[in-house]
Amino acid sequence: MSAPATPSPAAAVAPAGALPPMDRVGRLRRLRERFGPAGVDALLVTRAPNVRYLTGFTGSAGMVLVTPEAALLVTDGRYREQATGELEAAGVPVEVTIGTTAAEQRSAVADALGGAGVRLGLEAHGVTWATQRAWAEALAPVELVPTEGLVEELRLRKDPGERARVAAACAIADDALAEVLPTLAGGPTEREVALRLEVEMRRRGATGVSFPPIVAAGPHGAMPHARPTDRPIGRGELVVVDFGCTVDGYCSDCTRTVSVGDPGPRARRLWEVVAEAQAAGRAAVRAGVPAAVVDRATRDRIAAAGLGSHFVHSTGHGVGLEIHEDPRVAATSAATLPADAIVTVEPGVYVPGVGGVRIEDTVSVTDDGCLVLTGFPKDLVL
Amino acid sequence: MSAPATPSPAAAVAPAGALPPMDRVGRLRRLRERFGPAGVDALLVTRAPNVRYLTGFTGSAGMVLVTPEAALLVTDGRYREQATGELEAAGVPVEVTIGTTAAEQRSAVADALGGAGVRLGLEAHGVTWATQRAWAEALAPVELVPTEGLVEELRLRKDPGERARVAAACAIADDALAEVLPTLAGGPTEREVALRLEVEMRRRGATGVSFPPIVAAGPHGAMPHARPTDRPIGRGELVVVDFGCTVDGYCSDCTRTVSVGDPGPRARRLWEVVAEAQAAGRAAVRAGVPAAVVDRATRDRIAAAGLGSHFVHSTGHGVGLEIHEDPRVAATSAATLPADAIVTVEPGVYVPGVGGVRIEDTVSVTDDGCLVLTGFPKDLVL
Repeated sequence: MSAPATPSPAAAVAPAGALPPMDRVGRLRRLRERFGPAGVDALLVTRAPNVRYLTGFTGSAGMVLVTPEAALLVTDGRYREQATGELEAAGVPVEVTIGTTAAEQRSAVADALGGAGVRLGLEAHGVTWATQRAWAEALAPVELVPTEGLVEELRLRKDPGERARVAAACAIADDALAEVLPTLAGGPTEREVALRLEVEMRRRGATGVSFPPIVAAGPHGAMPHARPTDRPIGRGELVVVDFGCTVDGYCSDCTRTVSVGDPGPRARRLWEVVAEAQAAGRAAVRAGVPAAVVDRATRDRIAAAGLGSHFVHSTGHGVGLEIHEDPRVAATSAATLPADAIVTVEPGVYVPGVGGVRIEDTVSVTDDGCLVLTGFPKDLVL
Repeated sequence: MSAPATPSPAAAVAPAGALPPMDRVGRLRRLRERFGPAGVDALLVTRAPNVRYLTGFTGSAGMVLVTPEAALLVTDGRYREQATGELEAAGVPVEVTIGTTAAEQRSAVADALGGAGVRLGLEAHGVTWATQRAWAEALAPVELVPTEGLVEELRLRKDPGERARVAAACAIADDALAEVLPTLAGGPTEREVALRLEVEMRRRGATGVSFPPIVAAGPHGAMPHARPTDRPIGRGELVVVDFGCTVDGYCSDCTRTVSVGDPGPRARRLWEVVAEAQAAGRAAVRAGVPAAVVDRATRDRIAAAGLGSHFVHSTGHGVGLEIHEDPRVAATSAATLPADAIVTVEPGVYVPGVGGVRIEDTVSVTDDGCLVLTGFPKDLVL
């Protein structure tokens, strides 16, 4: 893989297929409306999903300078053709400048800003401390203002094109699971199941996985983020399958916990508690509801069953261009769920030495509840 | 996928197989020897590959506080079992503390540091500006010192266990390519070839891909980081195949450019120039040689052929726990190649409307040259 002037993460894979259009044109305008309240005159957007959201550019290295009058995508030579093509396809009025080194790119931004008296917002979560220090030096006397969530808050509410993409990713994941689950009866290894899921999602048009599938059987399931091993899956074991794919950059996220044959009364009980908690969480989702209320709905149910200490993570998270994005669905979340947000509801319990159960849907928030996008049936016993 | 108290990137996949041991025990000691010269009394290691390097912990969220006397891994509840198991397996003397929220984790670090007068190094490339601000507030009056490369410089020279892992990943990639290249004659799409490469690498024991494979045919190859499309690969087209996998966290990286049948004199000429430049680059690699000299070796050859403006990226980069790491092999690199570093040599030319050629090896630096780890033959015509 070729290197830029400075190292960057590996590129993601390609968009595909015909999907309804997204409302890209209004995004830059809505962002500029937020400059005044945020105390900035311009914003340098460096987080890759935010760059993609605003411009359609999908390269691994690029930033967008948004001023009141113009927008400038700064990237390196590897992306010259791709950037021009993607911006044209997105139909957004953004110029492209190529800078081979980080220093050249900083000069391009300095030139576009034009000097003193400017308060430039820099995404505090989107630059490293080292990068912030380099910008401060290169742009002086421009004042750098740390911003949080200026673009992310625009991304909370998904437009119809975005919802269609997440829904398409969820449908592909459902189909792949239907294909793969029956093979569990043959006693495959966790890794084999994970690989089959990946392949079946890709065959159905997914651009890639939204994260490497988790397939965790038996005692292994007690680790919420276990990675698939070469251990064969046995009859009567709880198997946590947590997986998703991307379609045109948008993620899906789904977990089911299953067993080949009866897993016994203790495991059945764990599963039932989580299934009830998950249903309670889904039932609590509605536009205008605090995210913490949804978390409480699942957590109370699990605590009432005496399993509270085994539910070691939050109830869910937003899903979109990132697999984990706002709003967080957690006890400590200050967010209120807006209409057209997309979140997961995924309570779980993890009992060391026994195993784990997690059940998760990706749901789209509506005015009177939610639309479940991951429709795959929730049955314990295959 | 379950969420931590604060969002985090998706987890990577699992290690596998029996490989020679790595020298983990000396790493913490060598790191502490660097504290004095760096002007710090302790270091908070937050970059995931650095955490893994020092402790063996592979979770997606965790940091290590290294003081002169002790080391403390701070992670969240999802990783309690995994962290304990991995640290034990690594045989390093590191304690584990669980903090459910970022605030709890910061408190744990503050408690372990014990207050005033401490100069705490914070990896300037490993924290966001927002995180640095939160640490500064939580740890005051501890002085935060931005550090660069303290752990990365230890990672430059690979121990025999590390080299064996990169070599294993390279061998798997070679084997997979041998399996997949013959299928190009059938005119598959770029995406089909990319998926087959992934599957064949996984079947041979790779933990995952080191980046999504690039398969770029015909005019598409003019984008150095093109993503695979649904366009079928035609006879006589230049096809750039850039791919790699991971074994126990260590990456491989290899590019070949091929054609089904004769691509014609112009394409053959491009290929020959790049092949010669790549051989010149490999020949320049030796312990003690400036990385910029290796870059010059490939660049001069391409410039001499009148194609200099089409070589739009640097010659290579280090490979290890990260697909792009130090040392950079670039015109502007200040690095000197040490023995046992592992780098890529990957010149390329990209001609809009025509296509691209890139040829890349992953090589291990030795006192008298280098060992090519990606041994797959370099032939243009299949």
